[in-house]
Amino acid sequence: MSPPKGRRKPPPSKQKGAPPRRGAPAAGRGRTDDRRSRAGGGRTVAPERRSGRRSASGELGGDQVEGRRAVLELLAAGRRPVRRLLMADGLDPSSQLDEIEALAYRRRVRIETVGRARLDNEARTEAPQGVLAYAEPIEPTPLEDLCRPTRSGRLPFLLVAAGITDPRNLGALLRSAECAGATGVVLPRHRAAHLSPTVAKVAAGALEHLDFCVVGGIPAALDEMTKAGVWTVGLAGEAERSIYSLPLGEVAVALVMGSEEKGLAPLVRRRCDELVAIPQHGNLASLNVGVAGAVAFFEVARQREVAAAEG
Amino acid sequence: MSPPKGRRKPPPSKQKGAPPRRGAPAAGRGRTDDRRSRAGGGRTVAPERRSGRRSASGELGGDQVEGRRAVLELLAAGRRPVRRLLMADGLDPSSQLDEIEALAYRRRVRIETVGRARLDNEARTEAPQGVLAYAEPIEPTPLEDLCRPTRSGRLPFLLVAAGITDPRNLGALLRSAECAGATGVVLPRHRAAHLSPTVAKVAAGALEHLDFCVVGGIPAALDEMTKAGVWTVGLAGEAERSIYSLPLGEVAVALVMGSEEKGLAPLVRRRCDELVAIPQHGNLASLNVGVAGAVAFFEVARQREVAAAEG
Repeated sequence: MSPPKGRRKPPPSKQKGAPPRRGAPAAGRGRTDDRRSRAGGGRTVAPERRSGRRSASGELGGDQVEGRRAVLELLAAGRRPVRRLLMADGLDPSSQLDEIEALAYRRRVRIETVGRARLDNEARTEAPQGVLAYAEPIEPTPLEDLCRPTRSGRLPFLLVAAGITDPRNLGALLRSAECAGATGVVLPRHRAAHLSPTVAKVAAGALEHLDFCVVGGIPAALDEMTKAGVWTVGLAGEAERSIYSLPLGEVAVALVMGSEEKGLAPLVRRRCDELVAIPQHGNLASLNVGVAGAVAFFEVARQREVAAAEG
Repeated sequence: MSPPKGRRKPPPSKQKGAPPRRGAPAAGRGRTDDRRSRAGGGRTVAPERRSGRRSASGELGGDQVEGRRAVLELLAAGRRPVRRLLMADGLDPSSQLDEIEALAYRRRVRIETVGRARLDNEARTEAPQGVLAYAEPIEPTPLEDLCRPTRSGRLPFLLVAAGITDPRNLGALLRSAECAGATGVVLPRHRAAHLSPTVAKVAAGALEHLDFCVVGGIPAALDEMTKAGVWTVGLAGEAERSIYSLPLGEVAVALVMGSEEKGLAPLVRRRCDELVAIPQHGNLASLNVGVAGAVAFFEVARQREVAAAEG
């Protein structure tokens, strides 16, 4: 009983209707080595910290996407070109991999089959799940565009990540925000997590559906948003006002989240139109920042639902 | 300039008022080696998977607590005896460590100062942050007690973790539940995460403030809860009813969360009094299970607040 040949074990029943298997394992190797030497080379620099990556991947990043769900959404959304798609050899059959194959076929993206070790070597997250894509970096959206209703008429519903440094937290916030119907995200240029592979993986595809803006300074951006009619609401654990007391159902709103360690910076705090807290009912000091964000996003969503049902 | 001696660098200013520094580095080493050989020995078995640990740590576990916040809450709550408290040598000063020291002094728990490598070696999470405690395992609470109002008169507000397998997800759920005012947690005996060191660390101390019950089967437990007057509400992404349409403000309630992969098992689904979804407004398929739980817990908290304000 020798194991079946090919990229991965064939699924037990399904064969018909699947796109043709493609991809030559050896292809692209030269390009890859070239790419890695340009990127600063070798594996001695820790993941997420290679110097010079940000300039090569645009201001926002998002060019390296790992993990099945994130790659699936990258292909499904089709918002930006996928330059290369790598899949590890010998993966167990899964419906997600079938979907990735079908979408890659439809988007005319060739799947390069590579050894598991090589894929893990190119990966910059801990668990790429055998799938890695190189895409065009995410193009920033001007702040004034984020402050306008979307083409489908939705009022702006923004996340201002004012100092989130942990890429897992930023990724979790993006995923929850997207699920709650957020329309865009404002990120500071410095001293904060950008759209790294870890962010992209944890965000589980949210990068493909949100608009992103990079600003030089959060306080000035908050002023601009207020002037554009967006209500800027900062989450601050010690605020007296409860988020549940704000009428959030029929307004353009931006939720401002501070850093994991220090919360909102003093100047950011002063520039917010409102500061609110999520009332706590237990003994522990505080929620995780990603969870606090999710609770706030879904409060906006709940109130918008109520307003839509009444209006 | 030689580095200061002692367990860790002294804080820049603060010296007065701190408890006396205690603990001899070499103490307890023999006991530790003894303990490790009893536990199956060596580091060849992966963290969280050492055989024989569960029986030694009771049905629920919770006996090994790592990470500063979790250890702080263990000492602050004082609900169960702490047998040993290990702290790594040479940690940078921090107010959390000062609090841990002060609480340990008050609880008469001796701090054993050990080398960083030894602490990391005894740890079963990736980042114990230089602090590790061995405590009495958490004592289970009978289900009928969880179904009664608390001594402070709060109606039961329970989490039924019906198949959560990832310890990080379970830990995150416990932390959010505690912050939202949950009173207890029901865990199945088999095929699910228990109160392992990773759960304890991610829960950030929630283990010390929640009551836990272990049941042989979730469906039978749901029946018992319904009979005891607890409304059992299952979270199911595909349910037609929205969680926001349920009157949750003045009832004893149990939120039932299924496994990350498969959601609620069919029999569990049938035994829930209600099945509800959190309405989704984005393009992504689903929220992370920990985040979905948090949104649901805080909806209960919000409705209880509204009811309390009105009543």
